[in-house]
Amino acid sequence: MYLGKVIGSVVATKKDEAMKGHKLLMVRPLLVDENKPSQLNPSSNTIICVDTLGAGEGELVMLAQGGSARKAEGLGPLPIDAAIIGLVDAVNILGEQAYKVNNS
Amino acid sequence: MYLGKVIGSVVATKKDEAMKGHKLLMVRPLLVDENKPSQLNPSSNTIICVDTLGAGEGELVMLAQGGSARKAEGLGPLPIDAAIIGLVDAVNILGEQAYKVNNS
Amino acid sequence: MYLGKVIGSVVATKKDEAMKGHKLLMVRPLLVDENKPSQLNPSSNTIICVDTLGAGEGELVMLAQGGSARKAEGLGPLPIDAAIIGLVDAVNILGEQAYKVNNS
Amino acid sequence: MYLGKVIGSVVATKKDEAMKGHKLLMVRPLLVDENKPSQLNPSSNTIICVDTLGAGEGELVMLAQGGSARKAEGLGPLPIDAAIIGLVDAVNILGEQAYKVNNS
Amino acid sequence: MYLGKVIGSVVATKKDEAMKGHKLLMVRPLLVDENKPSQLNPSSNTIICVDTLGAGEGELVMLAQGGSARKAEGLGPLPIDAAIIGLVDAVNILGEQAYKVNNS
Repeated sequence: MYLGKVIGSVVATKKDEAMKGHKLLMVRPLLVDENKPSQLNPSSNTIICVDTLGAGEGELVMLAQGGSARKAEGLGPLPIDAAIIGLVDAVNILGEQAYKVNNS
Repeated sequence: MYLGKVIGSVVATKKDEAMKGHKLLMVRPLLVDENKPSQLNPSSNTIICVDTLGAGEGELVMLAQGGSARKAEGLGPLPIDAAIIGLVDAVNILGEQAYKVNNS
Repeated sequence: MYLGKVIGSVVATKKDEAMKGHKLLMVRPLLVDENKPSQLNPSSNTIICVDTLGAGEGELVMLAQGGSARKAEGLGPLPIDAAIIGLVDAVNILGEQAYKVNNS
Repeated sequence: MYLGKVIGSVVATKKDEAMKGHKLLMVRPLLVDENKPSQLNPSSNTIICVDTLGAGEGELVMLAQGGSARKAEGLGPLPIDAAIIGLVDAVNILGEQAYKVNNS
Repeated sequence: MYLGKVIGSVVATKKDEAMKGHKLLMVRPLLVDENKPSQLNPSSNTIICVDTLGAGEGELVMLAQGGSARKAEGLGPLPIDAAIIGLVDAVNILGEQAYKVNNS
């Protein structure tokens, strides 16, 4: 899976029947910085993910790609190749805290 | 899934039997600009997608890749790895409208 | 799927039993030129595809990758991740004819 | 599969129900150096893998991606696309020992 | 599938139960040279493949990736995403012999 940051959303009225009622979020995968691995940088990619967990803009999520996305709860019949399967609370890299959600 | 822009079409008379009667469109995936994420740029890739939704040249679509493409309605028996599964009305990135369909 | 150009062939005598009797072609995927989209350029990739349609060297084909390749007629039991599923007659990009087969 | 080096971990409290109780590790795939193949370098990628083998930070592992990750023992129902399927003891490249685990 | 060159091997004692007894080889995929397509160059990638055909170091092989690797004989239950499915005897590119195995 990839870490990803939610940066927006997509509206598509005309779509495959099984997609109706599902939220579509734009997500940028995050990779560790090659020189300073505890820093997370957005990759050049942009992926539309189905979201069933209520992720919000700016939040870090974990996303699954390929047929595995259809194994997420309630997504079995959808023709999708990407879904958010977790909301990230913290990322620890080489003993440093690379990310911690702000719940204040 | 990827956002994509329809740029053309492919004609193939001799093909796998299950492909007969299906429209084949050339689609360029779109990624957010690294410096200005609300701007969408075509990637260097070019993907042939099966279309069942009636997408037209120049329109923005959502495409699914891999085995998930065969989960789109009516495409189960096709040996395909890419299909258009939605026509995009709007894309919102970081509070800005990155795309809005022109229905006028 | 990708557009591809057949550039050669592979001979492998010792192989998985299910592969026996199947033709193996070397194919280079084609992408649209970023500056002049009606021009098709070979990508840096080279893929071995199973061919059941009789594609010849120099011809343009449509290829499917991943498990979808096994959905092509007669290829179900093969341990393959790429197959030619169509012989391309024409490609139209942004109103221009990017390719037309020469049947003369 | 890829060789990978464990560099950290991810905590996600709100996640797909099937993910509960599974350890999530950050892994950087390793590739051979183009000029000196017996040297292993981290790639620019960063993958979250489910771990059932007890891998520790700094260790070399073998990871499977895509639907194959769900074939690892106990991971069938998870919506995952990456799992650690082996802890690496040694890697031999062109007659040289590129890696050997330190069990002292 | 990709052409690949066997460059080494991996030893992993602690691994998924289904992996026990299977040989793991390090393989570098080969691509045609962009300027001289009859020349094969190693790509920057390095893939661990399960081998059931007895490939040796330095030999050219054909490898399948993704779930298709599990369709190779005897590999159905393994959580793998790459397997060697053929030992390559010859590769012909644009009328030239790009590779021929040395059986002398």
